[in-house]
Amino acid sequence: MASKLLQVPYGTRDILPENMRLKRKIENNIAETFTKWGYSEVQTPTFEYLDTFSASGDISESNFKFLDRNNNILMLRTDMTTPIARLVATRLDATNVNRLSYRAQLFRYEEAQVGRQCEFTQAGIEMMGGAGAAADAEVLALAVNALLEAGLKDFTISMGQINFIEGLTEQAKLTAAQAETVKQYLITKNVVGLEEVINENNIDESLTDIFKELLFLHGGEELLAKMRQKNLNKKSLAAIENLQEIYDLLKIYGIEKYITFDLGLIRDMEYYTGMLFEGFTAHMGYSIIGGGRYDSMMTSFGKPLPATGFAIGIERIMLALERLEDAKKILEFDVYLGYAEEKLAAAINKCNELRAAGKTVCMAVAPESKELAKETQTKQKCRNFEYME
Amino acid sequence: MASKLLQVPYGTRDILPENMRLKRKIENNIAETFTKWGYSEVQTPTFEYLDTFSASGDISESNFKFLDRNNNILMLRTDMTTPIARLVATRLDATNVNRLSYRAQLFRYEEAQVGRQCEFTQAGIEMMGGAGAAADAEVLALAVNALLEAGLKDFTISMGQINFIEGLTEQAKLTAAQAETVKQYLITKNVVGLEEVINENNIDESLTDIFKELLFLHGGEELLAKMRQKNLNKKSLAAIENLQEIYDLLKIYGIEKYITFDLGLIRDMEYYTGMLFEGFTAHMGYSIIGGGRYDSMMTSFGKPLPATGFAIGIERIMLALERLEDAKKILEFDVYLGYAEEKLAAAINKCNELRAAGKTVCMAVAPESKELAKETQTKQKCRNFEYME
Repeated sequence: MASKLLQVPYGTRDILPENMRLKRKIENNIAETFTKWGYSEVQTPTFEYLDTFSASGDISESNFKFLDRNNNILMLRTDMTTPIARLVATRLDATNVNRLSYRAQLFRYEEAQVGRQCEFTQAGIEMMGGAGAAADAEVLALAVNALLEAGLKDFTISMGQINFIEGLTEQAKLTAAQAETVKQYLITKNVVGLEEVINENNIDESLTDIFKELLFLHGGEELLAKMRQKNLNKKSLAAIENLQEIYDLLKIYGIEKYITFDLGLIRDMEYYTGMLFEGFTAHMGYSIIGGGRYDSMMTSFGKPLPATGFAIGIERIMLALERLEDAKKILEFDVYLGYAEEKLAAAINKCNELRAAGKTVCMAVAPESKELAKETQTKQKCRNFEYME
Repeated sequence: MASKLLQVPYGTRDILPENMRLKRKIENNIAETFTKWGYSEVQTPTFEYLDTFSASGDISESNFKFLDRNNNILMLRTDMTTPIARLVATRLDATNVNRLSYRAQLFRYEEAQVGRQCEFTQAGIEMMGGAGAAADAEVLALAVNALLEAGLKDFTISMGQINFIEGLTEQAKLTAAQAETVKQYLITKNVVGLEEVINENNIDESLTDIFKELLFLHGGEELLAKMRQKNLNKKSLAAIENLQEIYDLLKIYGIEKYITFDLGLIRDMEYYTGMLFEGFTAHMGYSIIGGGRYDSMMTSFGKPLPATGFAIGIERIMLALERLEDAKKILEFDVYLGYAEEKLAAAINKCNELRAAGKTVCMAVAPESKELAKETQTKQKCRNFEYME
């Protein structure tokens, strides 16, 4: 046998029936919620030209790349926001508000961990063409509703605003390179690095406190009030007011209890331009949902349009739900139907009858004794048992 | 802009909302039918080691291949039978009968045509561990039921038996290479080539007629009766009796009217070892479903097991159904909700109320006049209209 014959590639896995059932249930519930909120599903190719992802700035070394027969570089898609931006630019009426949803396999060639395989599934939405707080509030309210419909109970959405941080770095007169360093330290939560930048750059005293606290600016509405008292520039203050406006709408949606603020929040996608968020659930070290506003991306595709959206990590929801319910104990089918020698015709007739009545039926493939059939019922995960003799 | 920025790679495409809705409906109906018949869904990686596909003989030049960081060759999967065989051999109890189903994106680097893109979707089932005619009949009956539930009305399943053809080439004392040539001519429907083989090889006169007719041996049950009168060897006769036994069971399933025989049928997958079939619908030049028995494949994965199954080409079903119904005219959502200046809060409350009542709602992202809202309703494909003023 060849050495790799029986293996799956690094960072990939098979999903067996028990887990697959849970996965489909989650996906279907989320998809129904997207429809309920007026989002239409689309599908894009599993791989794109590298040029497409390069244009959105959504490119790193962590890709699966290959060549087509004309030596164009193709890559397995790493996220769905870029392909959907391309699709809206080329195939849809961009003067409309386009509400789109997807369920897709994505691929990132990174170190594999639990809940973070190289191949994984995301379900998400993009709203192309909505500029204001109303659009962002809708997206956040839909995010909460989708997670609830997926079966999660105990989760929190942390919300930030990229302009709050950019306002601070501008006010502190950091160079573009220094501002980039600050963002990287925020992503990696590097407190020491962050303090070094502050100390080395002679930052205005009124700002040093906020910079030092940036990794810990978590809280509720009161945090916004507190920030208004600080000596912030116009950009940072506008970011705070934007968060307040969105939050006020979320109260009308009735989902404010799921929301907290994290004013140092930065996501590792570079394309965000406004509100951005991540969601977490108890006892899991990584986000289950992420999203935000990205008003510049569509310009790269020749159709300047405001946009906002999010993506849910389906495998991570599965891990969170596996803690809540033991999916593996569920019996999948209604009836196991065994039959004695010469009783195949009777068994098929019985099957036809049961299925016509809406039952799910797993029929024996050969005659067997009643005792053996009874044993097989359990192996085949059937709730009930019928035997033709 | 980079030259490929706005393009999709050769042989791939975007699926826009109208078509995607049809696709999901077809997939969901087929998936429900698979469950009803006792099949459990599994998922496998989008790419596998080349070694895995090589072992099953399911390999050609028409693959998308790339290297992992250890220089192992990976390939985007070209079918699901091989990955599921690997999965059953390594992850499931192979002493059980395993009834498995899937919905998957597949990739073949071939010339793209309508209904035959390089990336496409298949839904199918594999039954691992059932040897007899009962298993094959179940698979065929499920195939017919899945196509009916998908919405097709007018289709035919052509059924053949690989041992009928192999029996003939053995009886005619053809070499392995000559037998292979005959099979290739049958796949390409090359009448002239087939006659040449017969004339050049001095085949027994009692057989020449059958060889010449091989591409035209189509018909109902009477064709089997006619073949029994011919001077066939044991292998070919056993193949005829196997088809008869399966057909008798299909009558009990009540689906014989969808079945015809095509005794020259060969499929371009090399792994079939018994009954095999393809399904066609009116006015389409390619099969919408294909399958058969493949009892040798599991041996390549170290677990000798009889197996039978099929795959449905989802895009081809979509094309067939687009002829039946104009999917594009369907309005997708229940309510478009517009609102006047200062009425966003009232609109959100109305949305909450409508969605709680089970309605799908598409809300405006900004205030607009009632007239504009009315226009937007149509663009957003909503059946009804509400306006908060």
